Amino acid sequence: MKARKAGRSDNAREATGNDAEMGEGCPLHWFDADLGAFDDLERRVAEHPADFFAGQDFDPVGACATREASFASVQIPEDPTAPQQHADHLLNDVFRHVMPVASPTFVGHMTSSLPSFMPSLAKIVAALNQNVVKLETSGALTGLERQVIGMLHHLVFARDDAFYAQWLHNAEHSLGAFCSGGTTANLTALWASRNNTLRARDGFAGINQAGLVAALRHYGYAGLAIVVSERGHYSLRKAADILGIGRENLVPVGVDEDGRMRVDLLRDTLRDLQQRNIRTVAIVGIAGTTETGAVDPLDAIADVAQEIGCHFHVDAAWGGATLLSARERARFAGIERADSVVIDAHKQFYVPMGAGMVLFRDPAWTQDIIQHANYIVRKGSVDLGRHTLEGSRGSAAVMLYANLHLLGRKGLAKLIDTGIDNAKYFASLIEQQPDFELDSRPQLCILTYRYVPAPVRAALLSASPEQREQLLEALDALTINIQEMQRDAGRSFVSRTQLTSSQWGGRPIAVFRVVLANPDTTHEILQSLLEEQRGLAKQSPMLPALMAMVGG
Amino acid sequence: MKARKAGRSDNAREATGNDAEMGEGCPLHWFDADLGAFDDLERRVAEHPADFFAGQDFDPVGACATREASFASVQIPEDPTAPQQHADHLLNDVFRHVMPVASPTFVGHMTSSLPSFMPSLAKIVAALNQNVVKLETSGALTGLERQVIGMLHHLVFARDDAFYAQWLHNAEHSLGAFCSGGTTANLTALWASRNNTLRARDGFAGINQAGLVAALRHYGYAGLAIVVSERGHYSLRKAADILGIGRENLVPVGVDEDGRMRVDLLRDTLRDLQQRNIRTVAIVGIAGTTETGAVDPLDAIADVAQEIGCHFHVDAAWGGATLLSARERARFAGIERADSVVIDAHKQFYVPMGAGMVLFRDPAWTQDIIQHANYIVRKGSVDLGRHTLEGSRGSAAVMLYANLHLLGRKGLAKLIDTGIDNAKYFASLIEQQPDFELDSRPQLCILTYRYVPAPVRAALLSASPEQREQLLEALDALTINIQEMQRDAGRSFVSRTQLTSSQWGGRPIAVFRVVLANPDTTHEILQSLLEEQRGLAKQSPMLPALMAMVGG
Repeated sequence: MKARKAGRSDNAREATGNDAEMGEGCPLHWFDADLGAFDDLERRVAEHPADFFAGQDFDPVGACATREASFASVQIPEDPTAPQQHADHLLNDVFRHVMPVASPTFVGHMTSSLPSFMPSLAKIVAALNQNVVKLETSGALTGLERQVIGMLHHLVFARDDAFYAQWLHNAEHSLGAFCSGGTTANLTALWASRNNTLRARDGFAGINQAGLVAALRHYGYAGLAIVVSERGHYSLRKAADILGIGRENLVPVGVDEDGRMRVDLLRDTLRDLQQRNIRTVAIVGIAGTTETGAVDPLDAIADVAQEIGCHFHVDAAWGGATLLSARERARFAGIERADSVVIDAHKQFYVPMGAGMVLFRDPAWTQDIIQHANYIVRKGSVDLGRHTLEGSRGSAAVMLYANLHLLGRKGLAKLIDTGIDNAKYFASLIEQQPDFELDSRPQLCILTYRYVPAPVRAALLSASPEQREQLLEALDALTINIQEMQRDAGRSFVSRTQLTSSQWGGRPIAVFRVVLANPDTTHEILQSLLEEQRGLAKQSPMLPALMAMVGG
Repeated sequence: MKARKAGRSDNAREATGNDAEMGEGCPLHWFDADLGAFDDLERRVAEHPADFFAGQDFDPVGACATREASFASVQIPEDPTAPQQHADHLLNDVFRHVMPVASPTFVGHMTSSLPSFMPSLAKIVAALNQNVVKLETSGALTGLERQVIGMLHHLVFARDDAFYAQWLHNAEHSLGAFCSGGTTANLTALWASRNNTLRARDGFAGINQAGLVAALRHYGYAGLAIVVSERGHYSLRKAADILGIGRENLVPVGVDEDGRMRVDLLRDTLRDLQQRNIRTVAIVGIAGTTETGAVDPLDAIADVAQEIGCHFHVDAAWGGATLLSARERARFAGIERADSVVIDAHKQFYVPMGAGMVLFRDPAWTQDIIQHANYIVRKGSVDLGRHTLEGSRGSAAVMLYANLHLLGRKGLAKLIDTGIDNAKYFASLIEQQPDFELDSRPQLCILTYRYVPAPVRAALLSASPEQREQLLEALDALTINIQEMQRDAGRSFVSRTQLTSSQWGGRPIAVFRVVLANPDTTHEILQSLLEEQRGLAKQSPMLPALMAMVGG
């Protein structure tokens, strides 16, 4: 049976017979229009993004200067704008002033290049406009999404064939969910953790029904906490706030020199919480911190979680794809013991923005967050929306499905290995320079460093506490200045962050941060990056003051 | 200054010098590949979705039958699949089995047809892969998003020029946010409401920092509640759960015959909560219920909220776009008095999935949910991520920006008016039939009805309570059966829901639900829809039993 072909828009006009409010160029024709202007725009911008970014008129820096002036009006235009005119505006005032995240010299952020078939798939997904909340509005994409979640679940937890035969397409259970990003994925995991911890029992309806106060009263706890290393992503603080736990009760645990959670301190923290009758809802391990890519000792954390009977969540939003690499996956030993794991497909699985995932080892894990409604996500249905924080949403799963097939496990592993190799190369290059300092050694493809002239390095070793603080302040100012000059020059980009360093007694220092996820970033580019920064340092107004301190 | 052009992928291989794990056809070439197979797929599926849905091989019903078999493996393939092979698979096993939501005969859901330039824009957005969490990864799209939020804010709240000049691009404030959907938008609004209600004061750090239990202790409340009509969307229950308030404490208020919140009952509810020392965090008005499109008496609710000093939130996820229509916007009088309003752009603003919005009348409203982090969303920056529930996300705003310009206010208004006109026409058509019953009169473009043979109608009027219950049960079964037969036939689609009706003493009845948002849905299509349902009713195994009860 076939769906009826769309009528032309004059049907709609005929149906209403009232064009009184419309001026010239009734826009209903846009539902079936000739698209010359947009075909052209699409070809220029989307066919080869890297070429577009390298083009003569591309100007990311212009964005800031023109931002407020270009986007000032709050009046919705009364009449339709001519297509060619709007396409030109989008090209000249918007797309030419975005950031060239796909450029191999822009190594400051987690978004990089995408496989070249991806924009085509995104176009198809938009054209079909399916809503995966429900089988009725997504058809085969519901089954596909369950399969993709199953593939990721298998990658992390490697349960046996019987397990997946039983649970993969089971309507009443879910092995995980796609989310709009890592933040909603972490929130979903911690929501499930909180609700499982304080679930219905002995006549108590459960925290999901009765709320947090009633739950604590029933269970007899004084409060709730989430425990994570001090390098935890800020989305965890947000989750603690939203869930009613409070940001103060996201308890940070100190890290070792490599930025990994110290398990001895974790035990101290948990003991302290227990003595204060505060129930730990989840211990969160990080598999790839945002700032330095550090991987927590997951197996040891899993031991602790098991001992005290607490949920173990792993935030692998950035690092999770490392599991694809036969060479690197041992770093993640213990992740298979987690209750929940978050992985972002729009990071190292190389799909466009908007594809977070939460995975649950136990398919019953979503029982305390499940919902239904009469008009949608009915009880007993396979509808994906029953187990998700979000409601209506598009199919991000099909993008990941394509990458898993078109690149294969080996192809994706090659990308992971390439990034880590590039980070190791760049770390050794930095260590060979007399005037750069490596601040975090790469575990994955992220590292941090800064520019420190040799005389300053020497002076820091022998400085008094007061002198040292002055030098560190001047170094911070120089680091920030170099990063901003490099950004404003627009040839390349590194990000920056603040790291607390045991070397400086826990004082936070400003550092450059690079993420080497783009397979087109070459050794030559990395060499040029340091050369450019060295040149910028010499132009920086912050340098003379610093050198004067060390008599230079 | 220019970003450096992408190197070719052999650079990456050269950089690593290690292809040991890769078999034939190193997939890094996918980062710069010839795309013949995907160009072709894109042309067939995305160029004219309505034609694709009307094509010979399109088969939505096949989705269910093949779902589990087609998507059964949890093994990520080791080696890359050939592009043509995967493109063929996607076409034949996935895209041919989705739901034809853009078909004018599929009037059961809120997703319908999109303007024809939209897929091109989606392709461009994916190719540029900007992350609007931060200016550094989105450039001009940050300013554009603030403008679009400002346009919607002006549409709802119509503050004066000085207001927007001061706040539109103010880094420390936000007039609202894009969200992945209406669920996260409602959650954001209620999160802000909860945190504002229990904010920092007198040495108390605020609920965001200290958590819900400490907040209630400090403020001296016994609990929290959210009050909404019994027709509230299930996302509000979810929000009450996530926020620690509890689903039981989302308190439903009864509705009048038109499905609108009864303000007298609202007052009773609030009085009761106050007597129990339960603080109402927000009163939620619905401007377009999901089930019948009913619009609550917003102005009267605003009066009540003002009297008791309570936040007023309006869920206009579906209906908000009605404000564009000069003819219809009076229905929403009072919405400008709300503290927060949610509108989904992927509904009646006709952009693809994933574009919810929350708007705040007062730009300081986000102060209690704001966040920052060293490596991202720095204090003082214009970064959009500081005020949003979500973190990294793509630019949905550019889609809405295009519709606001290419269709203009008048063009979008025409779509709204067309939908409402179609709904009125369909309602009158139903009322003319001897064997159909209109169950909710359209306020917007949604209505509900069911098939009730004339003898059954007559019998219901004179039936004893027991007979009546038997008849209503048989009618429910018939309604469900007709809806499923129509869905399975695949020519057209209406959804169904359950409505409590004062006519039947609050007993829920099963009804068909149509949403007439597709401007290509003609009067002729609506006539055929009833004809088809009448025909299906006569084939239904449920009909003879029903007719036997009335001696037919």
